[in-house]
Amino acid sequence: MDFENRIQIKDTPKWVGKEVLLAGWAYRKRDHGKVSFVDLRDGSGVLQLVVTSGTKITGLEKNGWGLESVISVKGLVKERPAKLVNPELKTGNLEMEVKELEVVSATGEALPLDISKDIDKIHLDTLLNYRPLTLRSLKMQAIFKFSEKIESSYREFLKGDGFTEIHTPKIIPSATEGGANVFRVDYFGRDVFLAQSPQFYKQMMVGVFERVFEVGPVFRAEPHYTSRHLNEFTGLDAEIGFIRDEFDVMGKLEECIRYIAAQIEDEVKEEDRKILDFPSLRLPKGKIPYITLKEAIKVINKIKGRDEEALDLDTEGEKVLGQYAQNKFKSDFLFVTEYPVSIRPFYQMPTDDGKFTKSFDILFRGMELGTGAQRIHNPKMLTSNMQKHGLNPKDFKDYVNLFKFGMPPHGGWGLGLERFTKQWLGLDNIRLASLFPRDVKRVNP
Amino acid sequence: MDFENRIQIKDTPKWVGKEVLLAGWAYRKRDHGKVSFVDLRDGSGVLQLVVTSGTKITGLEKNGWGLESVISVKGLVKERPAKLVNPELKTGNLEMEVKELEVVSATGEALPLDISKDIDKIHLDTLLNYRPLTLRSLKMQAIFKFSEKIESSYREFLKGDGFTEIHTPKIIPSATEGGANVFRVDYFGRDVFLAQSPQFYKQMMVGVFERVFEVGPVFRAEPHYTSRHLNEFTGLDAEIGFIRDEFDVMGKLEECIRYIAAQIEDEVKEEDRKILDFPSLRLPKGKIPYITLKEAIKVINKIKGRDEEALDLDTEGEKVLGQYAQNKFKSDFLFVTEYPVSIRPFYQMPTDDGKFTKSFDILFRGMELGTGAQRIHNPKMLTSNMQKHGLNPKDFKDYVNLFKFGMPPHGGWGLGLERFTKQWLGLDNIRLASLFPRDVKRVNP
Repeated sequence: MDFENRIQIKDTPKWVGKEVLLAGWAYRKRDHGKVSFVDLRDGSGVLQLVVTSGTKITGLEKNGWGLESVISVKGLVKERPAKLVNPELKTGNLEMEVKELEVVSATGEALPLDISKDIDKIHLDTLLNYRPLTLRSLKMQAIFKFSEKIESSYREFLKGDGFTEIHTPKIIPSATEGGANVFRVDYFGRDVFLAQSPQFYKQMMVGVFERVFEVGPVFRAEPHYTSRHLNEFTGLDAEIGFIRDEFDVMGKLEECIRYIAAQIEDEVKEEDRKILDFPSLRLPKGKIPYITLKEAIKVINKIKGRDEEALDLDTEGEKVLGQYAQNKFKSDFLFVTEYPVSIRPFYQMPTDDGKFTKSFDILFRGMELGTGAQRIHNPKMLTSNMQKHGLNPKDFKDYVNLFKFGMPPHGGWGLGLERFTKQWLGLDNIRLASLFPRDVKRVNP
Repeated sequence: MDFENRIQIKDTPKWVGKEVLLAGWAYRKRDHGKVSFVDLRDGSGVLQLVVTSGTKITGLEKNGWGLESVISVKGLVKERPAKLVNPELKTGNLEMEVKELEVVSATGEALPLDISKDIDKIHLDTLLNYRPLTLRSLKMQAIFKFSEKIESSYREFLKGDGFTEIHTPKIIPSATEGGANVFRVDYFGRDVFLAQSPQFYKQMMVGVFERVFEVGPVFRAEPHYTSRHLNEFTGLDAEIGFIRDEFDVMGKLEECIRYIAAQIEDEVKEEDRKILDFPSLRLPKGKIPYITLKEAIKVINKIKGRDEEALDLDTEGEKVLGQYAQNKFKSDFLFVTEYPVSIRPFYQMPTDDGKFTKSFDILFRGMELGTGAQRIHNPKMLTSNMQKHGLNPKDFKDYVNLFKFGMPPHGGWGLGLERFTKQWLGLDNIRLASLFPRDVKRVNP
């Protein structure tokens, strides 16, 4: 069969009572003696095929087409009796009576996994080892359709708000934040690094376009092996010029999140919601609340009945704060502000007393979704701050020069797309929100 | 001054006769004794400011504000006399009579370059060394607004055609094409590589979503130092399932290019066209023409009056073919097909006689814009082809397994965004189409 006249499953409702050509994967199969029911999956949906002894089957491997074999079928599109409608599928009220079936690529009978049922019961490592297969399950598909929607709404909001989309280099001459946790690359015999964030470059671009954003890979050589860390993830970055302080950045980020929430609630398809079963976002009627780090630690100590002098939030602390934000503000999001200078990078703007930074983290259901701040835009303050952090301004010549070229007060944020998806959908592990996750132990597939 | 009530320059036409607050960079300055004319640039445009002895100037460095200093100004928006209208600016019919001027960040008088005029006369190396400054010129800005538009039209077309946007890993366990020219990364003590293309991963994703695309960085450790090579560029990739052959891929790519062309001709702003002065695309009335490699080499030999048995196209050959496509087909684009198996990667589908691949290059005004092909989807053919290319299928286990999970006939393409921009705008060097270009010699800024 030729694919020229092939239609996609999503279009079958227009062809009821007519013969069409479909092609896709054999997702499920139920043999009942003379008749077999095959759920055909293509890039647009799933449709039940009725294969009988009258169906003409062709193809080189016509006897070995197991699940996930690619087949093309010609037949009549029909409505199913009302009591047999499958409510889980968009085209669950239709089926095809197959006249001809061609086996295009047979898998034999030996797939390592049956992805059509109980994907949730498969062990995470197995899910990831067989990623090209397991991603085909409707549930995994729905996760990445969801994540694509977060990204496109993010882009749509920012473009609509005068931001320019940029691509900054991932190969950089020095470790962005001056810290460890960078991957070293052999670049024609010399050492360069993979960007931990587009930080310096997005700041440079504020001087050009005033408001910029980037969606791109971010590399972190952090040795953590947890359910919330990836060593390569998709960063959602933005940087804004002519702000008053970090609250302008937080305000813009809040607008952006509310836009994404509205788009997702609007547009995620019914059947995806059935498959994913995720809770709607809780956003407070007023503004997303904020709390200083100092207050946050007090709150955590009180709830946990302890008295620790924590310097920063840990995983457990973030969880407690997530619950606190739910109870007190009915909010899935919480800003934490006023991080001390000692635990934040050198380029964050200090408060007037020099103790804190004009920075924030944003927690989403008790997990850090991202971080942001006003940046230092005065070259003298910047070099003196670098020295305080034990860095040599000469190692960051191009960055330091930027501020001699005239920079306005500015700030921005960096979020992780995979964390956004994981927390929104309530996934157990961030690896499920990455197509081909990279962690300390895994670079395959 | 506070930025809260600041408006952007693009909005000044709504405020004629009223007092507003603007902020931006001092792009140009002309002193005429008691009165100075300052062109203020912000992220949205340029407006002339009239600064007189009556203007109250404040700010820490109020005497040292040279070009590119950040200033904020309060004053009256007025129409300029008809004969003084500046036709090169969108708001060239307006100016502001400045009452108050605050110097927010002064540059002093010592900028290394004047970017407001004759940017074309600045040497390429200087343009690139001072990228955070030179990108601010209206011409450089316009290049990247143009490039952003190519990208967004590319995305828009594919999303509208049922493609899913994906992000595949840039850290990969083995060299994609089995060749040299990959950068090695130290990944927690073991050697991994930077992806030369999303090739294997986009193929895996055809099994999931049928049609996918990716916009993301691509890394090539090619030692070429030319006006058309970058070692990191932005790839525009796509992959499509259920094709008949490479001509289906070429057909979809042509649709995509025609869509982008229509969007750009429609939407690139008047004033950007004045600044960039680029020729409109020439697309033939019928289909974009194609020519086999063998025929192409004959054409080149004939035009050049020589008789060489070239195996592939070189830079000069591509240029000659570009001219040939203009003359014969009135087309900026030309497909070259039927590349021999020996010079193409192992995963490209061979023709029935086994001599050629079902592949193509697409030339844009005499330069390779990208490449594409139908891929092998049969696991046995694939492993035997790998062996013919001297590769061990065991080194590509996850990729080989993919085809045991059932794959349809499929194919796709990879283009370079920077080449698209360079050729369309007629830029001399591809580095001008990359914000922060990376080449054999350059990783700064």
